[in-house]
Amino acid sequence: MSRPVPSSTSLPAGQQARIYHVGLGSRSYDIHIEPGCLAGLGAAMRNLFPDAGRCLVVSNEVVAPLYLDQVRESLASSGWAIAECILKDGEKHKTLASWNDILDALILARLSRGEPVVALGGGVAGDMTGFAAASYRRGVPYVQVPTTLLAQVDSSVGGKTAINHPHGKNMIGAFYQPSLVWVDPRVLETLAPRELRAGVAELIKYGLIRDAVFFDYLNRKMADLLALDTDTVAEVIHTSCRHKAEVVMADETEQGIRALLNLGHTFGHAIESMTHYTRYLHGEAVALGSLMAARLSAHLGYVSEDVEQRIRELYRLCGLPVDIPAFPADDWLEAMGHDKKNVGRRIRFILLNAIGEAFVAEQVEESAVREVIASFTA
Amino acid sequence: MSRPVPSSTSLPAGQQARIYHVGLGSRSYDIHIEPGCLAGLGAAMRNLFPDAGRCLVVSNEVVAPLYLDQVRESLASSGWAIAECILKDGEKHKTLASWNDILDALILARLSRGEPVVALGGGVAGDMTGFAAASYRRGVPYVQVPTTLLAQVDSSVGGKTAINHPHGKNMIGAFYQPSLVWVDPRVLETLAPRELRAGVAELIKYGLIRDAVFFDYLNRKMADLLALDTDTVAEVIHTSCRHKAEVVMADETEQGIRALLNLGHTFGHAIESMTHYTRYLHGEAVALGSLMAARLSAHLGYVSEDVEQRIRELYRLCGLPVDIPAFPADDWLEAMGHDKKNVGRRIRFILLNAIGEAFVAEQVEESAVREVIASFTA
Repeated sequence: MSRPVPSSTSLPAGQQARIYHVGLGSRSYDIHIEPGCLAGLGAAMRNLFPDAGRCLVVSNEVVAPLYLDQVRESLASSGWAIAECILKDGEKHKTLASWNDILDALILARLSRGEPVVALGGGVAGDMTGFAAASYRRGVPYVQVPTTLLAQVDSSVGGKTAINHPHGKNMIGAFYQPSLVWVDPRVLETLAPRELRAGVAELIKYGLIRDAVFFDYLNRKMADLLALDTDTVAEVIHTSCRHKAEVVMADETEQGIRALLNLGHTFGHAIESMTHYTRYLHGEAVALGSLMAARLSAHLGYVSEDVEQRIRELYRLCGLPVDIPAFPADDWLEAMGHDKKNVGRRIRFILLNAIGEAFVAEQVEESAVREVIASFTA
Repeated sequence: MSRPVPSSTSLPAGQQARIYHVGLGSRSYDIHIEPGCLAGLGAAMRNLFPDAGRCLVVSNEVVAPLYLDQVRESLASSGWAIAECILKDGEKHKTLASWNDILDALILARLSRGEPVVALGGGVAGDMTGFAAASYRRGVPYVQVPTTLLAQVDSSVGGKTAINHPHGKNMIGAFYQPSLVWVDPRVLETLAPRELRAGVAELIKYGLIRDAVFFDYLNRKMADLLALDTDTVAEVIHTSCRHKAEVVMADETEQGIRALLNLGHTFGHAIESMTHYTRYLHGEAVALGSLMAARLSAHLGYVSEDVEQRIRELYRLCGLPVDIPAFPADDWLEAMGHDKKNVGRRIRFILLNAIGEAFVAEQVEESAVREVIASFTA
């Protein structure tokens, strides 16, 4: 599924592109990973859309000042006419209003059905842009140009697009695959350290779900990774994109195995919701949620208690938060979408059988969940 | 593709269900047409969704007082817990705000991914409900229960869902197929005569596009049809659903042949937009647009001038409007999405080679369009 291709002549010797093909029939596409590839975006898009005249670039107030000029230049040099839409940054702006701003920009630019939208930013920009592309004229193509580690290794691949609703994260959206994912690891050099660590949490997630060897690798290489050592960064992005592509090809619309990628998300979404999407980054909340899922797994007898401890140590090594915020148990259950009136109902969780082996538990007793919450927040 | 099935024992002798299967792989579904079948909706849905507990019924202020009680009763008797969302009626309410009302109702009802939404109403309710179902949790199933002739013969089949944007009709939406289309021709008995005639315009459209025999049939049977003669109504719904199903199966996402169903829509949408969706029903605007498309076809030498005249006579027989409203040519072109700055551009139209044979003309000169507009509105 991976094939090395000759590097562009403008790149330093030794730098190579790696391409993963996400095979989904008529919805197939490539993930192209290459240091410095941002400069080649326009040509790659011209290759994919030979007859299109215009595109819309969606970015945010943090990323645009850093990379929009370079993207503009690359697009223009391949003959693209460019419209732009710059959003506010952050999960709290992942709203119907921002999505509507993108649609307004699409309509103002009069993009036709065959002309693409480019998402230049992190997971929030990518998710919203993808859903706008899915909805405008019942679907126009879009290209993911992820600029955070989290987006590069997870959210830009797989076609999950969404916006948040006041009553739930990612509650409104579509499964809608991009036409191309264009990953330049060099843009991580301007990423805030806290954002980088939140992205590492998603790497660790792949280790926990399906790759114990990768979990060990991250333990050994954490310092190199946080220092953005070129080879280490390339290795972790490659490994993660391979995992993500394999899972998406096996289960595009999350009828089965894809749900495992939601490890830590049931507790994590509750944490984000209870703290109004302002206190934790998504990756941080997923890390905290994964610790809780590990304890729930131990509580139910699937793993020993040291698994949680091993995960916690890796999070500490990375500089991720490990302290669960204190809220009343009813608030947790409410935030997990669990109606307080339905006492005794069972809840679906992603749990661990081991580090490197997650599974779906359909019928976890509410009482067990309450006990685990109490053990963290007492 | 059509198979007669035994009628329900509660129906008068001689009444039969007819079922068309829309074969789209994992997105396949049946169109079930049967006088009186509204009473069987709950059981049919229970059959399709054996494990679902709840559903949301979306209707509007005109249809709900007429049929919601019957639908509630049918659903409840098959064990459905029912949430409801009643929208305002009419094309001018086919907005982001109404769509958001449906999403709020879905979230309030906490519908899970496997639980269906029911659209009980005309094309507006069906289009908006379909798009809400497509978007809620990235897609939940929905069932079309069309209550206008237009929705029964056209919009409820084929998965085109949408809302309008201030700058364009159906500009935001998704291709998202229903799980079932449940057509009870008896509900037409309460349909306003003007709505009935607007639906007949869509029947005539099938004749114009691909069925000259059906065009002749409608000429002969118009009086019976408008009087809701049971056999005639059954015949026209069957023929239309067969045409729609065939076209959708051949081209689900309108890459080719499906575009022919848009005969009359380029001019028609402009008429709706310039009159702010208040003066004409959609079917009326499509009828007017089809007359203009016929004249444009003659102007370009594809058909003789008597084709427009034959269409006009059938519209007159039906009681549809035949007078094109007067607006400046620039307003027409602007409303057709044609930028005034791009003088000399070419426009895509659906034109006629004959009654019963439509085709896509990709490169119609703007000057020809202006001449046809001028000939109608001078």
